[in-house]
Amino acid sequence: MSRIKATITALESHLPDYILTNSELEKMVETTEEWISTRTGIKKRHILREEGKGTSDMGAKAVKGLLEKRGIGPDEVDLLICCTVTPDMKFPATANIISDKVGIKKAFSYDINAACSGFIYSLVTASKFIESGEYKKVVVVGADKMSSIIDYTDRQTCVLFGDAASAALLEPTEENLGIMDHIFQSDGFGRIHLHMKAGGSVKPPSYETIDAREHYVYQEGQAVFKLAVANMADVSVEIMKKNNLDSDDISFLVPHQANMRIIEAVGKRMGLDKKQIMINIHRYGNTTNATIPLCLWEYENQLKKGDNVILTAFGGGFTWGAVWMKWSYDSK
Amino acid sequence: MSRIKATITALESHLPDYILTNSELEKMVETTEEWISTRTGIKKRHILREEGKGTSDMGAKAVKGLLEKRGIGPDEVDLLICCTVTPDMKFPATANIISDKVGIKKAFSYDINAACSGFIYSLVTASKFIESGEYKKVVVVGADKMSSIIDYTDRQTCVLFGDAASAALLEPTEENLGIMDHIFQSDGFGRIHLHMKAGGSVKPPSYETIDAREHYVYQEGQAVFKLAVANMADVSVEIMKKNNLDSDDISFLVPHQANMRIIEAVGKRMGLDKKQIMINIHRYGNTTNATIPLCLWEYENQLKKGDNVILTAFGGGFTWGAVWMKWSYDSK
Repeated sequence: MSRIKATITALESHLPDYILTNSELEKMVETTEEWISTRTGIKKRHILREEGKGTSDMGAKAVKGLLEKRGIGPDEVDLLICCTVTPDMKFPATANIISDKVGIKKAFSYDINAACSGFIYSLVTASKFIESGEYKKVVVVGADKMSSIIDYTDRQTCVLFGDAASAALLEPTEENLGIMDHIFQSDGFGRIHLHMKAGGSVKPPSYETIDAREHYVYQEGQAVFKLAVANMADVSVEIMKKNNLDSDDISFLVPHQANMRIIEAVGKRMGLDKKQIMINIHRYGNTTNATIPLCLWEYENQLKKGDNVILTAFGGGFTWGAVWMKWSYDSK
Repeated sequence: MSRIKATITALESHLPDYILTNSELEKMVETTEEWISTRTGIKKRHILREEGKGTSDMGAKAVKGLLEKRGIGPDEVDLLICCTVTPDMKFPATANIISDKVGIKKAFSYDINAACSGFIYSLVTASKFIESGEYKKVVVVGADKMSSIIDYTDRQTCVLFGDAASAALLEPTEENLGIMDHIFQSDGFGRIHLHMKAGGSVKPPSYETIDAREHYVYQEGQAVFKLAVANMADVSVEIMKKNNLDSDDISFLVPHQANMRIIEAVGKRMGLDKKQIMINIHRYGNTTNATIPLCLWEYENQLKKGDNVILTAFGGGFTWGAVWMKWSYDSK
């Protein structure tokens, strides 16, 4: 009996219209185009500026486009998972709102939060539903309106993040392709270095938390940088060894796009050439849950059936991990 | 080849010390002990009052107790899922924080948000990891500090909710027991009746959102009541029919504990006797993600190997569904 595997069969993204450039940031905080570019690799990022719009508005556009691209109707979707750290509301789940906006009526849906590892954790979770044989079409949408939790007076963090949504469709295959293996790890001790101080059950919103600017991303860049490089590289090397893959066997590494220097350091530690690494951080910044599908979507026409692809992420939690996929289609 | 199934092998809960009675609520809002009791069935609820404590503090106590009860160490856990609508922080995931507090170091962990259906959605998600054969011990912890999002000047909602955490351990079995089937459904249109207006990416916290008291549960009780009864009953009847189960075959219905009158109406529509229904709402109120495992934990010594148990929930999203389990152990 050939075991069912889950594979990505389509990708679509949505980037909001407004583009925040480094030169515009120069006017907002004490920084320079050159400093941002050299330290982070980021040139610009998209921002959802319209009043009253949230993560679901971007997510719904990505999912609608995804279904159109694949030529299927909303009623064919069995399950939709949205990974986000910036849900529209504390409840209901942003996945429920996206489903409603897209007209998905015969599915269940929920949100996953694993910070920057959200997409890879959700992808593997979705794959388990497909592998069970009970689910045929599962959408995973990574979406974040990071601008809603960024302090635009903090020059260290405000240059890093952007808004975006990107969605992948998972379907079953009986070929030996798709999601082959994963290694995941979390360590909540890391929360001291990367978190949001207020707005949750420990410290609900108050005048004081607003005055203290505690509803924003708090990040100790140095500590996160070092651990991101070490852990993403370790887990990526581990999954390659476990599956007898050499660096030559890898068509693409798809790293979470948090910082160009992290990406380069991870690629180096894995013995990869720069052309084997998907990079688009210069155009979008760190879009948290959207970075990895945004890369796959942009590089889709360079991917060929059978290509070995390693996804890797590290982020708030800390959470990290790697996924090995064998790509299952040639782009048209 | 007998297929691996996932089954609950242990349960543990944590209730915070402070008990908020109906008579105390009489002093806080214009209500009466009798009104609360008649309309909701609730007599008291536990509240986590200690400054600076969040959902993870309750969750960690439940999980620690769970591992001790089962006699396993934290390093044996492969995956921990926390379902909550009141995470400690927006990120990292409360699951990561719980794992750290318990000393779980060799697992990955993430949060699921599906409002009141969070536990059943998480249970089935966890079961897919077990069924894959790759995961042996998965913890699902439903935990909510509802008091952090309740407006204690709103007499309609403040009487309904309580704080709690309750955890289940899932392990594989090759017997025909455990989680047998599920039917899940979401409809984001329902968000108009039950949501939290501010605090997310649509409306981040501000002086205005605090003044407008928008960081609290907003619920249109009548609309939610009707749909809860109809949908929980429909989906529970559907899962019974699909699996040729009569009401006599059911040892216990475990309904989400939101309102005694909802529970009774659902039981009636399913043709069940009151003694077939797990009820503890009178002592705890609606603890959102914790209600169902809290019931299973309290009734554990009445459950016998082979018992048919139906779990059902309805809540914010809307999300709803039913799970059919065959209980897999006799209580000692």
